Amino acid sequence: MTDVDLDIATLHGSLGDRALSSMNFLNQIASEYPDAISFAAGRPYEGFYDPEHLHHYLRLFRAHLEHDLGYDEREVTRALFQYGRTKGIINDLVARQLATDEQIIADPESIVVTVGCQEALFLVLRALRATADDVVLAPVPTYVGLTGAARLADLPVHPVRTTGAGLDLDDLVAGLYALRAAGRRPRAIYVTPDFANPTGVSMTVADRHRLLDIADREDVLLLEDNAYGLLADDRLPTLKSLDRHARVVYLGSFAKTGLPGARVGFAIADQKVTGGGIFADELSKIKSMLTVNTPPVAQAVIGGRLLAGGGSLVAANEREIAVYRANLRQVLDGLARRFSGDVSWNTPTGGFFVTLTVPFRADDGMLAHSARVHGVLWTPMHHFYGGTGGFHELRLSCSVLTHEAIEVGLDRLAKFFEEIS
Amino acid sequence: MTDVDLDIATLHGSLGDRALSSMNFLNQIASEYPDAISFAAGRPYEGFYDPEHLHHYLRLFRAHLEHDLGYDEREVTRALFQYGRTKGIINDLVARQLATDEQIIADPESIVVTVGCQEALFLVLRALRATADDVVLAPVPTYVGLTGAARLADLPVHPVRTTGAGLDLDDLVAGLYALRAAGRRPRAIYVTPDFANPTGVSMTVADRHRLLDIADREDVLLLEDNAYGLLADDRLPTLKSLDRHARVVYLGSFAKTGLPGARVGFAIADQKVTGGGIFADELSKIKSMLTVNTPPVAQAVIGGRLLAGGGSLVAANEREIAVYRANLRQVLDGLARRFSGDVSWNTPTGGFFVTLTVPFRADDGMLAHSARVHGVLWTPMHHFYGGTGGFHELRLSCSVLTHEAIEVGLDRLAKFFEEIS
Repeated sequence: MTDVDLDIATLHGSLGDRALSSMNFLNQIASEYPDAISFAAGRPYEGFYDPEHLHHYLRLFRAHLEHDLGYDEREVTRALFQYGRTKGIINDLVARQLATDEQIIADPESIVVTVGCQEALFLVLRALRATADDVVLAPVPTYVGLTGAARLADLPVHPVRTTGAGLDLDDLVAGLYALRAAGRRPRAIYVTPDFANPTGVSMTVADRHRLLDIADREDVLLLEDNAYGLLADDRLPTLKSLDRHARVVYLGSFAKTGLPGARVGFAIADQKVTGGGIFADELSKIKSMLTVNTPPVAQAVIGGRLLAGGGSLVAANEREIAVYRANLRQVLDGLARRFSGDVSWNTPTGGFFVTLTVPFRADDGMLAHSARVHGVLWTPMHHFYGGTGGFHELRLSCSVLTHEAIEVGLDRLAKFFEEIS
Repeated sequence: MTDVDLDIATLHGSLGDRALSSMNFLNQIASEYPDAISFAAGRPYEGFYDPEHLHHYLRLFRAHLEHDLGYDEREVTRALFQYGRTKGIINDLVARQLATDEQIIADPESIVVTVGCQEALFLVLRALRATADDVVLAPVPTYVGLTGAARLADLPVHPVRTTGAGLDLDDLVAGLYALRAAGRRPRAIYVTPDFANPTGVSMTVADRHRLLDIADREDVLLLEDNAYGLLADDRLPTLKSLDRHARVVYLGSFAKTGLPGARVGFAIADQKVTGGGIFADELSKIKSMLTVNTPPVAQAVIGGRLLAGGGSLVAANEREIAVYRANLRQVLDGLARRFSGDVSWNTPTGGFFVTLTVPFRADDGMLAHSARVHGVLWTPMHHFYGGTGGFHELRLSCSVLTHEAIEVGLDRLAKFFEEIS
């Protein structure tokens, strides 16, 4: 007998997908050059993290169970240690935060607490994929997590063009018509109205209203991903807060506003389901066979973080918001001081990302060169185009860097650009 | 405009599946009769849990990062708060525990730490399902989590008969031949050699060797689920410890040996993949699009629990093992004192479950009656047969009950049986 040798050609097709290998490649480059200054990492700022906070959050949540919910000692222990409700155990705190910070009024029962926003995304796409005709629409460029989750659910993604103001709504409508004419069934439109990853672009309020009207008229769901919206000064209304007909499934994340290490996100899914409950209950059924429930220990940490901010994450993130504002300002000013002519960039008012357009091919080989020779990392935008474009664009992330690192990093970027021009 | 109304017929087929609704039904009955004595709950014993342990475990893991791995303060904070490696951050501790407790020698890099064993199961089934011809084999009755995960991966399950000694290996071989003759591609055999859920049955050592030989000869993988094996006095070698050709993907859980509230499990997947890395790397790629990584905070809690036991979960669970031993003994003795003739049961030497065979139809209606009138809960075995059998069997779980509750519960069960005979 010889050892087992699986052939990748006999494994699920997603494993050959560009989206899944993109993440691997980018992580690998980052780990090969640990001393490079990284404009690639989209992680939140970590300067205010302190391991003692975990203990503080756990104690706050425990006190909440005892004093606000009236749990006795045995019930508190059970809530933290045992399996819990599939839908989650912090739904009331999440609903309160959404009402306080986002003017979203959500029944806690319409919320499913998930292992990060990524699980919420997969649950929704898995639920919506019933036949080979089903399709989801998404902007190009788009977050690779959407592409990957859709691939795992065997759900094709139809690309929608984007402009400097986000989703091109005319191209969206044209796409919906074309898909239906071809016998396909458009199920949902994935969109990040606020400071989208990777572009940093936000939609105007008028476009948000128009998008909701299109979704109503064309009877498709909107999947609103809002990982960054809260961390800005100029905040526009979310689609969900404008939603009057349960048209929007809202995908929330506490990775940037709480802490990534808890891996807690959620979906608001308040749609009625004929022959079932509400959509949140159906998502919950799928979740019961995927992760059973989101770790109560992790939910307790995020619950405590929500309690620490008096229910508001805007309040809890005051210092972080100031850092992100200053970093973004510094990057935009620093670009203006160093570049002109054939290098251009957009000017987001918040979020983690800026898009640069450059006169050379900014591909993976060029990134490796930039890392090796100039000690600076960035993200080739083609990864977010599924390899179909974006070869002259790159994404700069400024969320995790210090003031000094940004200056040195931009200097290195300037030298790199100079060398290859 | 009217509100969005989704039709369940247009959602993914799994949502109509019996496996997914079984769990819901059983949870609902349990929540309707909170004062009933429950032989239904398969949760671990909670008498030794104490919320302060969470803090202790977190501190132990932090000390491990500092002293054993030499992390500085910033690295410790980053490990706990930020996103982490998709494969996990406690792989070395898991490998050490497996070597100590199970005589399994696993490269930490062949381990993927998952959100409970359930995510590991889904990752493996998703990876193995490439075409509509693919199929997984599993015993009947079987754990609903297998049925549900397979449904989510659109992977059909071929049933294999079981005997009082577990998987019927002749029926297994016949099944493999029949599937291949019908043009299907058997990818793997799911099996729980130790104290299977729901039957409580274990495989003999001879059958374990024979099963490995069959898997080698027929070139299929074995998916070994081992959630209960460690919690017994008479421990037999796991398939993975006998595996010489990377034939076994081992699915591990810390829900019963650590705590369920951390939701941490893992897969050992050391198979080589032609055109890829090892199987663990491929599972990790899928995981990156499903949950990104297992919450580092939850991994830290389990890491601390492993450290608290000096690397051994057998040592850490000494008191729990004594409780499970006593409870199982008490249930078996109590059954013998109360029943005879047309009520019979098996006699597992460990694990959480005993199977009863009864002369009446033990279905959901009967369970509701038992709960309402007699205040005692159990699990109708038909839920584990996918509705195709087991209508005269029920599962008794004795893991979470006190000595007193078991006695009162068995008295109630006796009254219930008496009433309907």
